[in-house]
Amino acid sequence: MIERVRTDLYRIPLPTRLTDSTHGAMMDFELITVRIEDSDGATGLGYTYTVNHGGAAVATMVDKDLRGCLLGADAEQIEKIWQSMWWRLHYAGRGGHATSAISAVDIALWDLKGIRARTPLWKLFGGYDPVVPVYAGGIDLELPVADLKTQADRFLAGGFRAIKMKVGRPDLKEDVDRVSALREHLGDSFPLMVDANMKWTVDGAIRAARALAPFDLHWIEEPTIPDDLVGNARIVRESGHTIAGGENLHTLYDFHNAVRAGSLTLPEPDVSNIGGYTTFRKVAALAEANNMLLTSHGVHDLTVHALASVPHRTYMEAHGFGLHAYMAEPMAVTDGCVSAPDRPGHGVVLDFERLGRLAVG
Amino acid sequence: MIERVRTDLYRIPLPTRLTDSTHGAMMDFELITVRIEDSDGATGLGYTYTVNHGGAAVATMVDKDLRGCLLGADAEQIEKIWQSMWWRLHYAGRGGHATSAISAVDIALWDLKGIRARTPLWKLFGGYDPVVPVYAGGIDLELPVADLKTQADRFLAGGFRAIKMKVGRPDLKEDVDRVSALREHLGDSFPLMVDANMKWTVDGAIRAARALAPFDLHWIEEPTIPDDLVGNARIVRESGHTIAGGENLHTLYDFHNAVRAGSLTLPEPDVSNIGGYTTFRKVAALAEANNMLLTSHGVHDLTVHALASVPHRTYMEAHGFGLHAYMAEPMAVTDGCVSAPDRPGHGVVLDFERLGRLAVG
Repeated sequence: MIERVRTDLYRIPLPTRLTDSTHGAMMDFELITVRIEDSDGATGLGYTYTVNHGGAAVATMVDKDLRGCLLGADAEQIEKIWQSMWWRLHYAGRGGHATSAISAVDIALWDLKGIRARTPLWKLFGGYDPVVPVYAGGIDLELPVADLKTQADRFLAGGFRAIKMKVGRPDLKEDVDRVSALREHLGDSFPLMVDANMKWTVDGAIRAARALAPFDLHWIEEPTIPDDLVGNARIVRESGHTIAGGENLHTLYDFHNAVRAGSLTLPEPDVSNIGGYTTFRKVAALAEANNMLLTSHGVHDLTVHALASVPHRTYMEAHGFGLHAYMAEPMAVTDGCVSAPDRPGHGVVLDFERLGRLAVG
Repeated sequence: MIERVRTDLYRIPLPTRLTDSTHGAMMDFELITVRIEDSDGATGLGYTYTVNHGGAAVATMVDKDLRGCLLGADAEQIEKIWQSMWWRLHYAGRGGHATSAISAVDIALWDLKGIRARTPLWKLFGGYDPVVPVYAGGIDLELPVADLKTQADRFLAGGFRAIKMKVGRPDLKEDVDRVSALREHLGDSFPLMVDANMKWTVDGAIRAARALAPFDLHWIEEPTIPDDLVGNARIVRESGHTIAGGENLHTLYDFHNAVRAGSLTLPEPDVSNIGGYTTFRKVAALAEANNMLLTSHGVHDLTVHALASVPHRTYMEAHGFGLHAYMAEPMAVTDGCVSAPDRPGHGVVLDFERLGRLAVG
């Protein structure tokens, strides 16, 4: 039985200034942690994050609205708790920040379940292969070309064997020159992806896709807003590229409608905003049923368990969001892969004493 | 220039216990008010509400996240402010509680604009006809049949000439009996609508629609979850009824995708959760372009201006949500219609002194 729920909000400084076509300059991110303790004293940890804004509202939802779904509930019945959280926040919710709040709780509940079962989550989820290929997600739209190459060398030295760069510069020619320079730097068959963060119109995306065709991109991510199902379907049909998307889809239905409309070919749910492991795994099943590979967005230390349990995973995103500085055993990248830990639950242990200094009132 | 933003959260008791198939018993609702003052001392009022939960998070978003889009901005450039709010909350947002927060601000900005221009909003929006037909929205799933009839008599005495009742009882036969009783009570051509609040499966909705066919319903609302575009399209095709929906759609794109999928035939945006007047009017244009009538959900004292400015409006919802007790001049229903006030802005004046007693910490 769940006895205690604790929510905290932190503002974590980024190791370097990050830039993309939509969010502008990012100096820090908001981290919302949830700790759930059962009557045996076992504790599960969950967390989610936001880009620049909305973190206080997410923490407020967990604290004021979801707490009532948790206290006194049987922590083993996660699906039941999940449904009660979804319907409690459904009016005005149905996605949005509500699913980020639900995600943090869901992740904590799965962590608790794994800890109680003394089993790592990737095994609890069925178990496929703990070794998962990753890519380095550069957030580097404003980085000069020379620095892009230096960053790539740093990624390579760090064990990465796949790299994603930002596109969506004001002038398409700049994107072409930057991608061309990095392709040349990395060599012909090196997996190179680009991410436009919704910058383009549909026509602009198709034009960009054609201009970028010579560089054999592994995928193009979020060419335009995900709300435009018809426009994205045209991009899929006419661009000749794999079209990834999902960090801004917040429900199983969002993914279903996008897949059914043919508006993306590579789903990338974020376990920390899609509704936790519970929904991530349903999206994984949807991808498998549709003969699609599956990638991910954000919080790779958590995501690795979901991808280590399914056969159709491709490169998982690894972000430089700076949370590793507060983790007991951050994931190590070796030969382009990471390994899901064999510790019970998700195995992420945060240093709450050091995080305390970054707490937001 | 915007100089001050004030957000308050209240819990308003309902005059009677309300019941529907999804939200269970409702004893009160959360009201979030936003007051925006410009450097000339003019003040605009906006508000939104939630059903049971999420209100504190909405207030927090306005207070912590949207305030930065407002202070120092030119209050006349509402579309520009709207875009900055949307993108500020886009990550994790893109609908959900974020659009409720944006709605409250947007409504306050339009009120301010109307007050500065000494013009009621329905005229500022173009002006069609201030007299708008309304229906009484009964929230009455658990009301015994005798009380349903008494409630209908009270609605008739109050000036209403159209009534909506809840359906979605555990046994379809009960729905049929209740609708049959009310149809008989009201007479053959009286506009009678039903609202299932997403209770049914797709097959269940089609079965219910057939069973309810003899009662000449004006529309069926939310037969199943709005996320199921394909299922709702089947209900539209096979049910033979007008299918209304929209209180749970939170973006212009949600409406576009639903209309394009053929999953609803009567859009009912809620000005307090769709993104304010700014988005409501875009949904109105979408409905007109698609040769559809337009109804609404919630906050009718605000909505009346949006419907009084367009030609394709049909019955506007009037709820018994009990806010009228705190309004200077609540709308009066005469011969089945209400009239948009000729006061500047939306013309709603709340008694904040009395509301103060209902403030949530």
